[in-house]
Amino acid sequence: TEVKKIAVIAGDGIGPEVVAEAEKVLKRTEELFGYRFETEHALFGGIAIDEKGTPLPQETLDICQRADAVLLGAVGGPKWDNNPKELRPETGLLGIRKALGLFSNLRPAVVFDCLKDASTLKPEVLEGTDLMVVRELTGGIYFGEKFRRDTENGQEAVDTCAYNVNEVERIVRQAFEIAQKRRKKLASVDKANVLETSRLWREVVNRIAPEFPDVELEHVLVDNCAMQLLRRPSSFDVIVTENMFGDILSDEAAMLTGSIGMLSSASLGEGSFGLYEPVHGSAPDIAGQNLANPIATILSVALMFRLTFGYADAADAIEAAVAEVLDAGHRTSDIAVDKSKAIGTQEMGDLIVAAI
Amino acid sequence: TEVKKIAVIAGDGIGPEVVAEAEKVLKRTEELFGYRFETEHALFGGIAIDEKGTPLPQETLDICQRADAVLLGAVGGPKWDNNPKELRPETGLLGIRKALGLFSNLRPAVVFDCLKDASTLKPEVLEGTDLMVVRELTGGIYFGEKFRRDTENGQEAVDTCAYNVNEVERIVRQAFEIAQKRRKKLASVDKANVLETSRLWREVVNRIAPEFPDVELEHVLVDNCAMQLLRRPSSFDVIVTENMFGDILSDEAAMLTGSIGMLSSASLGEGSFGLYEPVHGSAPDIAGQNLANPIATILSVALMFRLTFGYADAADAIEAAVAEVLDAGHRTSDIAVDKSKAIGTQEMGDLIVAAI
Ligand SMILES: CC(C)[C@H](C(=O)O)[C@@H](O)C(=O)O
Ligand SMILES: CC(C)[C@H](C(=O)O)[C@@H](O)C(=O)O
Repeated sequence: TEVKKIAVIAGDGIGPEVVAEAEKVLKRTEELFGYRFETEHALFGGIAIDEKGTPLPQETLDICQRADAVLLGAVGGPKWDNNPKELRPETGLLGIRKALGLFSNLRPAVVFDCLKDASTLKPEVLEGTDLMVVRELTGGIYFGEKFRRDTENGQEAVDTCAYNVNEVERIVRQAFEIAQKRRKKLASVDKANVLETSRLWREVVNRIAPEFPDVELEHVLVDNCAMQLLRRPSSFDVIVTENMFGDILSDEAAMLTGSIGMLSSASLGEGSFGLYEPVHGSAPDIAGQNLANPIATILSVALMFRLTFGYADAADAIEAAVAEVLDAGHRTSDIAVDKSKAIGTQEMGDLIVAAI
Repeated sequence: TEVKKIAVIAGDGIGPEVVAEAEKVLKRTEELFGYRFETEHALFGGIAIDEKGTPLPQETLDICQRADAVLLGAVGGPKWDNNPKELRPETGLLGIRKALGLFSNLRPAVVFDCLKDASTLKPEVLEGTDLMVVRELTGGIYFGEKFRRDTENGQEAVDTCAYNVNEVERIVRQAFEIAQKRRKKLASVDKANVLETSRLWREVVNRIAPEFPDVELEHVLVDNCAMQLLRRPSSFDVIVTENMFGDILSDEAAMLTGSIGMLSSASLGEGSFGLYEPVHGSAPDIAGQNLANPIATILSVALMFRLTFGYADAADAIEAAVAEVLDAGHRTSDIAVDKSKAIGTQEMGDLIVAAI
């Protein structure tokens, strides 16, 4: 079997703990399915700032570029929050996305049955919610020119939001393809009544749409989408949008499922390369205490198997194992109703590994 | 008594119907409280496009500028949705905000007891929710330079987001003042980990904060705010943010109350001048059928009395009248549980007028 190279970035906070459990899962799938993985660990985020003086060391980038996929835990924490821009974990995150060409961020928002009650939404509203936000990740106001200048009204700050036709085309085409494999509904979100980038976005979507006649397309204004996600979450299938809107809407969508601690995400470039990470953050308050929930990271491995390696059998097995362990009633404290019965990070990892 | 001039813009869709009921309320408060109003009607939005060839005729602007306050129904509709930019109702909306210097948009999101169940959020989560979004309305990416240019990756569209210190100062100071009169909590929302305008925003907020030592300030990233609004809506008091973020978050906040058809809003400039309008849109599908709910527009009159004229007695009376009519069980069809018992726009207006 071909050896797949995986760059493993544990990161900060609970990152190392949840990644350790995901690595157990990798090992177990090697044994069971005969796949072969070679992992290489790399420093990134806060720990890289502390040890290397930069959130994204060149060596880390080299390791990622040599790899077939990247598994990321989480980065950031209060320790680095007041650092100057070049010394902040987020700067590393934006840098790695750009450097690896990860233009597409897939954030599935699904409701785990056992967590239905954790949502602040009424269960009957949530029923059947299973959507995917496809967020453009290397363009828009995140990466446009930024500067300050003096004016007669005091200092002025400027951010530039730009999108070209190619950037919009590749993400929109990908979103249509994803919708085609799901429930065949695509909501393209923009603010075409105000923004020029949104008008270009909508033109491109309308031009591409005829290539996917089986996909039902709707254009939704971003403010309206923020409302509709609350009003009728289950009516959405795939949502495609630009970087800044995607940041906001994917977090709203994740939160409304009540399952945010369990959600995985993928950032994809051209070809099959991808970076996989849990949606949750580095949770510095519970780091190092064997309290974190490793499921989102373990499911990120399943997503990697599915999207980058095409190992659907192993992906299915991991997802089934997670479901089995949850069905048996095992919970880490973040998702436990009775906290006194909660199990730790490692125990959860072991149970899932055993169930694969 | 001094005569107050009110520019009345009925607009499109249900606009004329709901504004007509609000005018009955104006008349009744004249009789009861001895105030004197002079109303002048103006064309705006779709109807102005049809009749004058522009969404914001100069005459309308003149009428508004002569007035002490503006009452607006709603604008827009599918009829004008595919028009070129200069012939779209939204362009008039952006134009009137800029021309009248309405830099501050107040959108209260409160839960009406009788509508608690209309929300998709669980009642226990919603309990006590009463927040106000203070949105900057004449700056940011809405009003920055916009253009297209050709690149090797196809045509590129560009929007510019700019804020200067003065623009941030005036809206932030106003938000602090509002918080001081409420529960003394202010959440300033930005994306300071990515945007230069947000970093300027946060600097200004931090510089002004010591002037309001009694107000508890938190900085919240916009993506996190979209989540926290869902998770803990009642913990927010005043939220202040820039134009684009405010557009999204105020709609999310309004929707989660379940009371969106009942919410009013104010857009304020320097001094006491203000434009008042319901949060809901022009609802072309139910226009002209005596089906619309006039309460949000009537409450916009109360807000005008309170904020622009300082007529707290009349504002209180209107709000009490609305509460009384709702408590008595009267409902328009949008908020009726039993639609067969719903009353019409005019009946609702008459009942409220009678209850003042
Ligand atoms: C940390 C931040 C720069 C980042 C983003 O805004 O993209 C995060 O919010 C995310 O969504 O991955
Ligand atoms: C119609 C549109 C231009 C407007 C805005 O984005 O400001 C509307 O959504 C609003 O919030 O008043």
